[in-house]
Amino acid sequence: MKRVYLDNAATTYPKPECVSKAVCYFIENIGSNVGRGSYQNSYSAAQIVYETRELLCNLFKFNNPLSTVFTMNITQSLNMLLKGFLKPGDHILVSSMEHNAVMRPLNSLKKLGIEFTKIPCDVFGQIDYDVVEGLIKPNTKMAVISHASNVCGTMQDIEKLGSIFKKYNIHFVLDSAQTAGVFDIDFKKANLSALCFTGHKGLLGPQGIGGFIITNEFASKITPLIEGGTGSLSESEEQPEYLPDKFEAGTLCLPAIYGLNASLKYIQKETTKAIREKELYLTKLFIDGVKNIDGIKLIGYEDIKNRAPVVSLCFEDIDNSEVAFLLDRDYGIMTRVGLHCAPSAHKTLNTFPKGTVRFSFGHMNTEEEVKYTLDAIYKIMGK
Amino acid sequence: MKRVYLDNAATTYPKPECVSKAVCYFIENIGSNVGRGSYQNSYSAAQIVYETRELLCNLFKFNNPLSTVFTMNITQSLNMLLKGFLKPGDHILVSSMEHNAVMRPLNSLKKLGIEFTKIPCDVFGQIDYDVVEGLIKPNTKMAVISHASNVCGTMQDIEKLGSIFKKYNIHFVLDSAQTAGVFDIDFKKANLSALCFTGHKGLLGPQGIGGFIITNEFASKITPLIEGGTGSLSESEEQPEYLPDKFEAGTLCLPAIYGLNASLKYIQKETTKAIREKELYLTKLFIDGVKNIDGIKLIGYEDIKNRAPVVSLCFEDIDNSEVAFLLDRDYGIMTRVGLHCAPSAHKTLNTFPKGTVRFSFGHMNTEEEVKYTLDAIYKIMGK
Repeated sequence: MKRVYLDNAATTYPKPECVSKAVCYFIENIGSNVGRGSYQNSYSAAQIVYETRELLCNLFKFNNPLSTVFTMNITQSLNMLLKGFLKPGDHILVSSMEHNAVMRPLNSLKKLGIEFTKIPCDVFGQIDYDVVEGLIKPNTKMAVISHASNVCGTMQDIEKLGSIFKKYNIHFVLDSAQTAGVFDIDFKKANLSALCFTGHKGLLGPQGIGGFIITNEFASKITPLIEGGTGSLSESEEQPEYLPDKFEAGTLCLPAIYGLNASLKYIQKETTKAIREKELYLTKLFIDGVKNIDGIKLIGYEDIKNRAPVVSLCFEDIDNSEVAFLLDRDYGIMTRVGLHCAPSAHKTLNTFPKGTVRFSFGHMNTEEEVKYTLDAIYKIMGK
Repeated sequence: MKRVYLDNAATTYPKPECVSKAVCYFIENIGSNVGRGSYQNSYSAAQIVYETRELLCNLFKFNNPLSTVFTMNITQSLNMLLKGFLKPGDHILVSSMEHNAVMRPLNSLKKLGIEFTKIPCDVFGQIDYDVVEGLIKPNTKMAVISHASNVCGTMQDIEKLGSIFKKYNIHFVLDSAQTAGVFDIDFKKANLSALCFTGHKGLLGPQGIGGFIITNEFASKITPLIEGGTGSLSESEEQPEYLPDKFEAGTLCLPAIYGLNASLKYIQKETTKAIREKELYLTKLFIDGVKNIDGIKLIGYEDIKNRAPVVSLCFEDIDNSEVAFLLDRDYGIMTRVGLHCAPSAHKTLNTFPKGTVRFSFGHMNTEEEVKYTLDAIYKIMGK
């Protein structure tokens, strides 16, 4: 059976061919750790790791590769910043569209006396910018905002938010899980203190690699959550204070970094602009095909302005899970159904607790696949 | 030039061929996340992840695959247990041979009012078992012990330690970084509360995967350090309480898990006994070739009893770094020089701050390589 992968918001698939090649090249021909061996292979791995930090900095218009920290995934990145920075008595702002990668840590921190406020968003998931300043308190130290919703694709205006947060000296942390590699993000224009990224979505790398880019000033205020050997300052039983070692303890996920290195070069060659335009073209094609169908409710914007290529639908006469099941079983179309680890977002969008069927488009999808999917949806609905 | 890899204590290399094949198979043909998609590929990835948990449980003689948690590396595993369990006022025992993956977190925790005591070890790195009970205090809640030293290979008697800790209801956590896959570890016989492992050393998998096996009782006392989406209980903004989800937030390093799955099956087929016997045979060959040479000091036991295949040497008439450099440049022999992220161990062994040159043998090394290395050492020393 034909297979159509529309779960690119979970992880992009297929990856560019260069990704598995780079991963295997490392495992088969390099193998060694970085900064720990005193031999050639170890140095060449170190070069690729450094180059990958540079590629990320180029992408996000940041100027210090050593301030790029690698983690296993963006959830770890967010936890390291939230739990390493916030102290009892602090207040943090988030949007009401955040993923559980932010909300679950915050609900734990609440028990320690750290309060959070959700900036309200409208039913399309867009932040109400007019109320942001009114929610800032004297103890507001940090704001974490998801650039685009993983449920409905709605994007926030991060430069507008950044200028507000800057005025109040609030550290602005961006969750770029759904946008990095596809949308332009300018670290400085958005007045970010840190940008958290995952390697395996729009950055087209393998699972197992994420990280964050951080200013030295913000980094100096953060206690590392994970400490241990760094291959540096080996004589000391204290974690080094400098970047990236402060936040990179233990062996890095080197095969995944080699894969990410390859995918970042691929993106550089294809350009984010071309990737974005294609993905949004497919998104528009899909939305146009579902927006006027009785029995389907489109969640989020109809327009592709301010939108990532993530589309959520609610089916009115047939159970969402049934739709996803039939799409997979009868048509080989892979979607994701439910709450997408973002109950707060679904509450904002009035789709809680039912959830939605999510169709997320990637660089490798085709116009023909979108048409096939629309046709499958019509057939399932008996139209 | 010939290349001889003797840094297997950092990471084993080369990996069995099946490892890169499995990693690539996942990246190229499966791709999807686990427990998040409602389609076939997602289910097959879930099966492999579960099977990998089972393989680990079989290896360590534990009976509950769902109590096997995956992390990025063993440093994360140790941090999650140390920082998630210990509270101000608690006391923990470690050996004086611990790696910085344990000592750096403990030096941070000390600032929060958590005290630690290092169980003294002799100049071979062996714990003084007679003093252990005397170091236990009413507030001693936990003990973390490295099974074998990453500096000199000396192994501790974990069953003896386990029976002491059990008597005082102390949670015993084993750091198996240098032994898993090569030496037999029986979770229950050692009375462990948790066994931390890394995937890329003796377990022969790729970098980027580690984890721990934990009893339900101990797990219930630990606050997760990293929280976020788990693909489960999506309606809740609180981390699930059950295993392994409690400690597995965000996307797992799936390519590395596929690689580890393959390497664990490889070990099962080869048997740890055969792997161990070969590695110790090479270790003995090497030790016999250096132990009586003027100008070389062997650190740790001469005998291969109670020993992992990790050998540290101190050179008396030539700088250790110079030896490692020449071995690499002129003979293609890859070793590791310095303190190996274990200053406490080097203090115990009287090799601080100078450090040692470490030769660590793996399953893929040959008798011929050991002889070649001995010959290179003799030549460098002008013998």
